[in-house]
Amino acid sequence: MRDFSADHRWLSINTATIRRQRGQEVPLARLIDQCAAHGVRAISPWRDQVAAAGLADTARQLKALDIGLSGYCRGGFFPAADTAGLRAALDDNRRAIDEALTLGAPCLVLVVGALPGALEGRPVHKDIARARHEVRDGIAATLAYAREVNLPLAIEPLHPMQAAERACVNTLEQALDLCDELDPARSGLLGVALDAYHCWWDPKLQAQTARAGERRTPQERSRLLAYHVCDWLTPTRDLLNDRGMMGDGVIELRRLRQWVEAAGYEGFAEVEIFSTQDWWQRDGDEVLTTCIERHRTVV
Amino acid sequence: MRDFSADHRWLSINTATIRRQRGQEVPLARLIDQCAAHGVRAISPWRDQVAAAGLADTARQLKALDIGLSGYCRGGFFPAADTAGLRAALDDNRRAIDEALTLGAPCLVLVVGALPGALEGRPVHKDIARARHEVRDGIAATLAYAREVNLPLAIEPLHPMQAAERACVNTLEQALDLCDELDPARSGLLGVALDAYHCWWDPKLQAQTARAGERRTPQERSRLLAYHVCDWLTPTRDLLNDRGMMGDGVIELRRLRQWVEAAGYEGFAEVEIFSTQDWWQRDGDEVLTTCIERHRTVV
Repeated sequence: MRDFSADHRWLSINTATIRRQRGQEVPLARLIDQCAAHGVRAISPWRDQVAAAGLADTARQLKALDIGLSGYCRGGFFPAADTAGLRAALDDNRRAIDEALTLGAPCLVLVVGALPGALEGRPVHKDIARARHEVRDGIAATLAYAREVNLPLAIEPLHPMQAAERACVNTLEQALDLCDELDPARSGLLGVALDAYHCWWDPKLQAQTARAGERRTPQERSRLLAYHVCDWLTPTRDLLNDRGMMGDGVIELRRLRQWVEAAGYEGFAEVEIFSTQDWWQRDGDEVLTTCIERHRTVV
Repeated sequence: MRDFSADHRWLSINTATIRRQRGQEVPLARLIDQCAAHGVRAISPWRDQVAAAGLADTARQLKALDIGLSGYCRGGFFPAADTAGLRAALDDNRRAIDEALTLGAPCLVLVVGALPGALEGRPVHKDIARARHEVRDGIAATLAYAREVNLPLAIEPLHPMQAAERACVNTLEQALDLCDELDPARSGLLGVALDAYHCWWDPKLQAQTARAGERRTPQERSRLLAYHVCDWLTPTRDLLNDRGMMGDGVIELRRLRQWVEAAGYEGFAEVEIFSTQDWWQRDGDEVLTTCIERHRTVV
């Protein structure tokens, strides 16, 4: 396993982690400057932040500061109430891929979606099997374009508590089954974003992580395209925005990274913390300093 | 599939559903009288309620009213910080079995436990694999006694969002793997309590439900010992106490019962709702009336 204790060269900051500072939304350009000041080599920005900052300007700023991406957040949300909605989702995913290319992202992270309308508290139907079929078809269609332009898609299995609203792909096994169905050749263009927060509880995590890294021939590529960290707090007070800083919860982060690296992963450990009541209330530099310290000591 | 529309003979009320009425704790004897008044044939009471009401008195009251049990809540919580704690948990599970026998329960439901101390917000360690080993050993020891006295144990897989505090058995597949390991003969003394709320999201639920009902010889018994219902709300505002009334959320309850009955289950549909802000604030008779109506129309 790589030694993270001496520096933070393998730290990436998902910009959601510092998008609110002292309770206020902070523009992406400022976040990127803060990351640069802390010697952070990679980030994973969100589409709405990039849209607000301007795609070309963001690309220029990242290049000037020599900051790369560990992923781009996010494509997905394939299921829809009707055909027009399904079509719109595919178009939007094409645009996300184009943006990811412009920013030089190594992959587009897919939060695949679930029951249409559920995110707004008004689910249009309850048929999760239908949603899963639409996700499969949506990824298949998006993958066709991703192949044309050579931009990998990373399916992110979300915690089962997000199954209604955000993603009906909820285990690493399920995500890998999808990958095997849609990309049996393991081309490298379809894989997974493994997030410790979403998957830590899974009794099959070690075995499925090993499966994700399998390469049966030299031509095959690993499915492990991204690795995200934060921590699971006890108690967790909110289903979405109460994630903990690494080391403050119960996830065995060292053990998980051991599994991920044993499976061949050599990329960034990306910190993604949504925390309305705690980290989003703090100073951004304090958050970054803490991320760096925890990256070196507990990730 | 059985027709539930004409009556509520297959409705059971988990007493947690009405233990608080208009925000106030209500004694078990009163709950049982309310259930009897509504023609409810079965309940599943909790140990603390029975202890407060008196075990013998409760047994007498149930008998006088001709109310049976669909289960007894609950054994489990096997993992502990030290050997003394492990021992105490086993002793406590023996007592739970004895109580279940006195009350004529068809099974003792096991919420198996997880990281010791996590429920109190102070996890003693983070080693979920260790907790899972302790759960296996604890069930094995408890099963030995359960066999002596012929009282089935029902492992309840809890939603993964409860993996740190309450149960490190989080999928039906995992529970059935445990059953196969500890009771390969499928004696009927070890099985599962399948709760729609905990398992609805699972992409393997249909296949694993079928597996739970498998009987390869006439001597073998089904693993399906109990079936619990409520609903998953969008949004869900609390990880523990924001369960919905059947029909108010996104779980396809009819489809799930179809799977459960296709696997041979012919028992009660037990309503178990924890709801600090909604159902626990209402009048108990209103809650029971609603349970009955929903049982007939959406379960």
